[in-house]
Amino acid sequence: MSGSGSVTFADIEAAAARLAGHAVETPLIESPALNERLGARVLLKLETLQRVGAFKFRGAYNRLVQLSPDQRKRGVVAFSSGNHAQGVALAARLLGMPALIVMPSDAPAVKVAATRGYGAEIKLYDRLKESREAIAAEIAASRGAVVVPAFDDPHIVAGQGTVGLEMMRQASAMGAAFDLVLSPVSGGGLLAGVSEVVKTLSPATQVWGVEPAAFDDLAQSLEAGERVTIKPTGRSLCDALESPAPGEITFPMLKRNLAGAVGITDAWVAEAMRYAFSTLKLVVEPGGCVGLAALLTGKVPSQGKTVGIVLSGGNVDPELFARVIRGEI
Amino acid sequence: MSGSGSVTFADIEAAAARLAGHAVETPLIESPALNERLGARVLLKLETLQRVGAFKFRGAYNRLVQLSPDQRKRGVVAFSSGNHAQGVALAARLLGMPALIVMPSDAPAVKVAATRGYGAEIKLYDRLKESREAIAAEIAASRGAVVVPAFDDPHIVAGQGTVGLEMMRQASAMGAAFDLVLSPVSGGGLLAGVSEVVKTLSPATQVWGVEPAAFDDLAQSLEAGERVTIKPTGRSLCDALESPAPGEITFPMLKRNLAGAVGITDAWVAEAMRYAFSTLKLVVEPGGCVGLAALLTGKVPSQGKTVGIVLSGGNVDPELFARVIRGEI
Repeated sequence: MSGSGSVTFADIEAAAARLAGHAVETPLIESPALNERLGARVLLKLETLQRVGAFKFRGAYNRLVQLSPDQRKRGVVAFSSGNHAQGVALAARLLGMPALIVMPSDAPAVKVAATRGYGAEIKLYDRLKESREAIAAEIAASRGAVVVPAFDDPHIVAGQGTVGLEMMRQASAMGAAFDLVLSPVSGGGLLAGVSEVVKTLSPATQVWGVEPAAFDDLAQSLEAGERVTIKPTGRSLCDALESPAPGEITFPMLKRNLAGAVGITDAWVAEAMRYAFSTLKLVVEPGGCVGLAALLTGKVPSQGKTVGIVLSGGNVDPELFARVIRGEI
Repeated sequence: MSGSGSVTFADIEAAAARLAGHAVETPLIESPALNERLGARVLLKLETLQRVGAFKFRGAYNRLVQLSPDQRKRGVVAFSSGNHAQGVALAARLLGMPALIVMPSDAPAVKVAATRGYGAEIKLYDRLKESREAIAAEIAASRGAVVVPAFDDPHIVAGQGTVGLEMMRQASAMGAAFDLVLSPVSGGGLLAGVSEVVKTLSPATQVWGVEPAAFDDLAQSLEAGERVTIKPTGRSLCDALESPAPGEITFPMLKRNLAGAVGITDAWVAEAMRYAFSTLKLVVEPGGCVGLAALLTGKVPSQGKTVGIVLSGGNVDPELFARVIRGEI
């Protein structure tokens, strides 16, 4: 691991070795119907089929497996609206250490229940009135536990980057070379890691970040050339993509690697979820399908291209999913 | 193809060569959560990701691609409640021939719409008052068109059997050898083909058919030792599995190859659909998840075993899916 906190291709390869046999090597699939609709060749990386239903298990496991025996005994603390929570909870259980997760009281019920199901202790907080960072820091201090950040940690970034390693290897086995790679982005852990792999192995490939239009901190940051923290005016359908700023570690990587970032409205997120349901037969959570939405809307033109997209997670409350597929959202 | 109408392993290999580059080689995936729940190793064959959202494309394409130029000009006629309809319609479009599909007026709307979307002409009929066989035969005679049966045709059986070929090859690449293979069964096209492959390559593997409890014609037929036609007393949630009898060609193969058949109630079909949604993140239609239900119920004991199951299709109306995941069914 380089001293600066930046993450290298070699770090991501090392993470892949740690994850082998623990994370699922998720399939990279192709849908003739989607290809035909877009006039492109689109390969979809199904991180919905990852343990805990999202890529977050990769980074969490890569972080936790490197803790010392003494650290493992005292356990870990994390704050997360859901997928990182589950990733940390499951990784902790597999590695035999206690985990406490600070979650917003309005997190999707399925994510809270699953996190508890993996054996983690849950502390709910009020998103509008309390600071999750302060709560987590206080608990961690009192227990001597390690705080596991959701994205701004080199081991987390390296773990998420293994998604990109698999995509490149699988695409190559399918005789495909990506012109474009699209991934959801919030704090940037996944995208920083994936973009590092893609640009290392295939410098000509364009990598795009896709975020909620109402949480376009990455687009604003790329334009400003530095990290911008936005003041969100409301919620997004994408509960997993509500970070108000890219990370300290992730932003320099994103700035170096990305072709750009595009924003997706809730209406198009819902449309992409319906497409995934009706045509791809996949359950994708709102934040997991913004890359698909970027293609369906043409926000990232794909005609004639070979495109890789990450469907990053599938943890969605049945009630919300029902409303989306019935066209109520 | 043997003269008797039975289908051999070589026929299925020949079908696989015809389908290469046309059908999707669907992934065989594994879910650590499902494995843990069952105390088994379960590999799921995702025919939900096949063209038209169900395995039926395989048999249809294998049948249609073998028609003569003259037959192709006059086109094909099929009757089906949905998935075979879509398979024939798409195969006909790809091969440039006209298709007319006779569908019950109460078929799932998504299946009717998709069939029309592939360019087929649709003729709706009243399931209770009219004979689809008679309607199809009359239209076929008037056009000189070929009738494409849903299951009782050696080319259809051979095409569906390619699911089994892929499963065996993929499992082997994953270092797995099946103790059990489970597949949905209605007329038996899929199961006859799959069981022929499995028993040829791995005689010790037990192959089970899974059908709706209310349409247990296969279980009754196996017990009687000959084809039994049941008089259904109602509908099943599994619109794709309502054949009242196994086929003439398929039954002798099933009788020879199967360890047995089990029946699943609608309540358990719905439970399996919810499990696929919430844990596997897959959209599976009712008839597509009876194999999963057979494992979740313990109707086919799986503890300590390596099990292959076919998730045969994902074409389900959003309204029905919404009701299932909300627990209303």
